[in-house]
Amino acid sequence: MKIKNTNIIWHHANVSRADREALHAHKSVILWFTGLSGSGKSTLAHAVEDYLHKMGVSTYVLDGDNVRQGLCSDLGFTDSDRTENIRRIGELAKLMTEAGIITLTAFISPFISDRDIARKLVPSGDFLEIYCSCPIETCEQRDVKGLYKKARAGQIPLFTGIGSPYQVPENPELIVNTHEQTLSESVEHVIKLLVQRGLIKIVD
Amino acid sequence: MKIKNTNIIWHHANVSRADREALHAHKSVILWFTGLSGSGKSTLAHAVEDYLHKMGVSTYVLDGDNVRQGLCSDLGFTDSDRTENIRRIGELAKLMTEAGIITLTAFISPFISDRDIARKLVPSGDFLEIYCSCPIETCEQRDVKGLYKKARAGQIPLFTGIGSPYQVPENPELIVNTHEQTLSESVEHVIKLLVQRGLIKIVD
Repeated sequence: MKIKNTNIIWHHANVSRADREALHAHKSVILWFTGLSGSGKSTLAHAVEDYLHKMGVSTYVLDGDNVRQGLCSDLGFTDSDRTENIRRIGELAKLMTEAGIITLTAFISPFISDRDIARKLVPSGDFLEIYCSCPIETCEQRDVKGLYKKARAGQIPLFTGIGSPYQVPENPELIVNTHEQTLSESVEHVIKLLVQRGLIKIVD
Repeated sequence: MKIKNTNIIWHHANVSRADREALHAHKSVILWFTGLSGSGKSTLAHAVEDYLHKMGVSTYVLDGDNVRQGLCSDLGFTDSDRTENIRRIGELAKLMTEAGIITLTAFISPFISDRDIARKLVPSGDFLEIYCSCPIETCEQRDVKGLYKKARAGQIPLFTGIGSPYQVPENPELIVNTHEQTLSESVEHVIKLLVQRGLIKIVD
């Protein structure tokens, strides 16, 4: 028997998100990096975090590896498990944003509908989708984790780009061509986006 | 088909928890408040958060209401759903602690085994269990949310303390007798615990 969830009263926190943002001296936001395996999402997210941290910004990177081992360790890689994975990450990122943190997520997140679920969890402007664009040939050539090789050998049936589709973002807040520019150029583009949106301020 | 989760490599963040703690100028920790419905967990957690925030500490309160509406909205109140609920909250609190935040959780969390699962997710000393001790008669008299009334009327079959047991912590880091002291006395006890553990410093 599943008992329905009808006895819930929202508890208003005394300390608000705005209070936490004021303490941290910057706004919070979700930077949602998406792209193929090997497109540089995690590398870019961690490099942006490093840059922001050195500016005094409170940050955290959620990626497929650390979340998959914990919060989502019960989930596999079927379509429905991937959807639930992204939903939980969206909820997690939402709470971290409430906590006043710039939260960077680095997940393939291949389906438009799943990314839209995450986007719609938070107020407009709180979700910035950053598409790490890179041809699959380049990703496969890099093959840092050896996953493309395994996928080609049929050992990972639902691997994105081979056994399962990647749906390119239709209207992302930023496209980063990770194969055409250096890592620091890519970082610069993300930082510029944050400044343009008034989320952080560059102080001389 | 559920595909097993064997293709995961842990991604080491460039920015570490210690870096984030240094930025925030305090250590991070989980304060796990447990007790009956109406025992004052949420009130105390929010009051402690308010106190810490005014000290310049980065904080966040997870409670049954905000988590139940989001991350755990797919879960009900059966034993197995409660266990999964607490597991996810533990994982969430762990990530927030990694992010350098003092994370306060305010959940009935009635089962010793579930609280132990959450405790074991993090290094020793990162999980401080705070038992909000209050006789069920007092909780029922308060009945802020009208839940005891509903439970007595048989409308909430697995309500903790009536249709489902509450297992008192055997060895919590702190016991707060919420019915015998004022809210500010209770807050003071929690703050004292944090200072004793070297997690925060009181600066004159």
